[in-house]
Amino acid sequence: MKKFTSVSDVENLQHIIKKALQIKENPLSEPEKGKGKTIGLVFLNSSLRTRLSSQIAAQNLGLNILTLNAAQEAWNLEFADGAVMNGDTVEHIKDAIEVLNQYCDIIAVRCFAGMKNKEDDVNESILSQFEQHAKVPVISLESATRHPLQSLADCITITENWHFDKLSINRKPKVVLTWAPHIKPIAHAVGNSFAEWMQEMDVDLVITNPEGYDLDKNFTKDIKVIHNQDEALQDADFIYVKNWSSFDDYAAMPEVKENWMLTNEKLAVTNNAKVMHCLPVRRNVELSDEVMDGENSIIYQQAKNRIFSAQAVFSEILDELNS
Amino acid sequence: MKKFTSVSDVENLQHIIKKALQIKENPLSEPEKGKGKTIGLVFLNSSLRTRLSSQIAAQNLGLNILTLNAAQEAWNLEFADGAVMNGDTVEHIKDAIEVLNQYCDIIAVRCFAGMKNKEDDVNESILSQFEQHAKVPVISLESATRHPLQSLADCITITENWHFDKLSINRKPKVVLTWAPHIKPIAHAVGNSFAEWMQEMDVDLVITNPEGYDLDKNFTKDIKVIHNQDEALQDADFIYVKNWSSFDDYAAMPEVKENWMLTNEKLAVTNNAKVMHCLPVRRNVELSDEVMDGENSIIYQQAKNRIFSAQAVFSEILDELNS
Amino acid sequence: MKKFTSVSDVENLQHIIKKALQIKENPLSEPEKGKGKTIGLVFLNSSLRTRLSSQIAAQNLGLNILTLNAAQEAWNLEFADGAVMNGDTVEHIKDAIEVLNQYCDIIAVRCFAGMKNKEDDVNESILSQFEQHAKVPVISLESATRHPLQSLADCITITENWHFDKLSINRKPKVVLTWAPHIKPIAHAVGNSFAEWMQEMDVDLVITNPEGYDLDKNFTKDIKVIHNQDEALQDADFIYVKNWSSFDDYAAMPEVKENWMLTNEKLAVTNNAKVMHCLPVRRNVELSDEVMDGENSIIYQQAKNRIFSAQAVFSEILDELNS
Repeated sequence: MKKFTSVSDVENLQHIIKKALQIKENPLSEPEKGKGKTIGLVFLNSSLRTRLSSQIAAQNLGLNILTLNAAQEAWNLEFADGAVMNGDTVEHIKDAIEVLNQYCDIIAVRCFAGMKNKEDDVNESILSQFEQHAKVPVISLESATRHPLQSLADCITITENWHFDKLSINRKPKVVLTWAPHIKPIAHAVGNSFAEWMQEMDVDLVITNPEGYDLDKNFTKDIKVIHNQDEALQDADFIYVKNWSSFDDYAAMPEVKENWMLTNEKLAVTNNAKVMHCLPVRRNVELSDEVMDGENSIIYQQAKNRIFSAQAVFSEILDELNS
Repeated sequence: MKKFTSVSDVENLQHIIKKALQIKENPLSEPEKGKGKTIGLVFLNSSLRTRLSSQIAAQNLGLNILTLNAAQEAWNLEFADGAVMNGDTVEHIKDAIEVLNQYCDIIAVRCFAGMKNKEDDVNESILSQFEQHAKVPVISLESATRHPLQSLADCITITENWHFDKLSINRKPKVVLTWAPHIKPIAHAVGNSFAEWMQEMDVDLVITNPEGYDLDKNFTKDIKVIHNQDEALQDADFIYVKNWSSFDDYAAMPEVKENWMLTNEKLAVTNNAKVMHCLPVRRNVELSDEVMDGENSIIYQQAKNRIFSAQAVFSEILDELNS
Repeated sequence: MKKFTSVSDVENLQHIIKKALQIKENPLSEPEKGKGKTIGLVFLNSSLRTRLSSQIAAQNLGLNILTLNAAQEAWNLEFADGAVMNGDTVEHIKDAIEVLNQYCDIIAVRCFAGMKNKEDDVNESILSQFEQHAKVPVISLESATRHPLQSLADCITITENWHFDKLSINRKPKVVLTWAPHIKPIAHAVGNSFAEWMQEMDVDLVITNPEGYDLDKNFTKDIKVIHNQDEALQDADFIYVKNWSSFDDYAAMPEVKENWMLTNEKLAVTNNAKVMHCLPVRRNVELSDEVMDGENSIIYQQAKNRIFSAQAVFSEILDELNS
């Protein structure tokens, strides 16, 4: 694997899921693989799970870790090409990346959508600079439009909870990606990315969201979108809960009259569906306490799988570097 | 040791002091004990000594370290059970802890008293959530009412400076915990904790503070409290200097007319007492420069012992995990 | 080497440059040299290159690393001797240093000029406290008046780009330190330090800056200062671009009428000069995009050499500690 910023960087999804599950069985099976190599973890935004799971994965592989909390520890970066830097930006992202090239064998970066300028976000104005200027493999720790390490963890988690290879199960699982309420405009990265990765899995995917909240067609392609949540949840095996703001009317939050918070009552029409969420979750806004703490939730398992998702990716990147 | 949040978690105090002193002789005697295990150091508040000494202790044991500065690197946490999270909190503490359960073998947390709501602080509203939801051993890096790693370091330091086992000394040392002035309301954790631990040591403990500043009786029990500092200091062998605000009139700072700052003049009535302080200290407010820089101070020795206090505790926790 | 705060701490500059270049060939040649030892990296100011390069250097030597971002992770420090600490400072720098003495085998510290009080800055009011109170070797990660790890990296870079030992080159390179425009008052540390180190190198050094911007004579000594940039750049082999504010009228920014930004046009009069900058750089203010991205720039190479500069210094300090 030469880089990891979307599902298209994965040659064989089933292979990497299998590898991640092997790592989960034995996380310390390759303790020297990263020896003498350095991964830079660059956070342009806050992080809890991604920060911790990436560190654990890197430690398990013997990688040196350089963590940079850009905003707090360094300074404001300039993103515009050709800018006359006479304002409040102190270093151009190009130069920061060139320095990271000198210091790191792998660059992993978190760069959220700014949610201000649709074109900037859709074009991945920050990640694209890393892809363009980095001379070492780039790993996305969530960018403006995708969160691939999360999506791989989601694939791992669904695989653990559905026995795809068992003969007794002769149907695909029904997976529903459902919009959930929130109090402020949230990015599309997790939703987009989940849609994209599920199209590579052997599942029946349905997306449900209110009118005005359809995701970018470039990610959802031909996936069925249903604007009635109850109808969509019917017979679901997995429900993925996530908020996002409007894509068409970018970052707007058109009024939603129905209650979209996932509750046990709504679970009743499903096939005893497993509930997923990438975290952090707004309890009693996106989903109820009873769902979060109930038996259908596989949300913490999903969080744990972030380690093995990251470690499988780092390991494949190291294969490339060591080859 | 299954957890470490107060002296009651210590089965045999003399044993762990002895262990810490052995570690001080040879800090790298167990370099592989923590191999493949991860300690999460979660800071909900600032830290210098605790941060550094915990990292050194963990490194000496070969533990992987995940440091999380929650406020700066992650986001606002919700602490209220059942909260509808439609405000400015982004993740519930329960969910953050469940994720730490997935990522860490030991969770160490710093969670100061808020000093706003007495009941919340007395009930350890944050630490109690860690104790309730953590599925791995929890270590306090100072909580609302206690600072046990400091207190253990204090016990180690007093042991080093008093030869309890020498026949020639046929009396217990007199240890005086004295209130000191400060400019803002300070928590009770260090005072409470020192009182609690000294009751397990073979010492004569006296507490002295102005009227209105008595500590919580649940910690001080039957310890003599004297409201005249000069009287209390008489013949002291050790003086522990620390400010705290009122407990009864919670977090208030009733006027104090006498000068309680510890000076060389005040030391004159003692038995050439050793002076202790947990740091950070407000020089020339809590104690004078001459005391801080004088020969009676064992304050830096005490700071150094924070390493061995932490390492002894981590080591005992690892014994439990490895058993 | 007992400490490293200026060029005068280096016994033999050619020796340490050679050592750094050997390390660059084989960064992992001394992987156990720092084993069981701890370096404290104390940042009183922001850092990107210094932070990362120091960590890599320390990791390559097997040192334990304690990073302290003082402002964000700890608290406000008091710097005044004898201060009555009843204000907003929480810990005296003396006490913080004494604690670092207990915890670290080497203390490295970044403490920029405050740019408010000339005397404080000239006297290194912060670094001097580290030099006075530290009981372990002190390394400057840039102080009020010097940036020696940068200057050593500069010497390494010039050595790589000029074959001093080749018989065919029978002249010294002409090195020009040129002032560049900026939008706010910048410290003199990099300029001072470069001037100081170049006087120890076998080069012809010229400094050029506008009237009113002459550096402190204590650093520039007898170096020729030319107030006409074009004249100074004539036949240059190396150009070092850096802004600084007025030293005489401390931290002021007297008006400059000419355009001092380095451009390709200005390079035309040079001997195809290599261009250097310590980074971060304000593009199209200090120098043009075309220079930054052009073939004459050795700026990223210079950034990379920060690793080997730091590692050579840490290694020499460890020689002292291990002896």
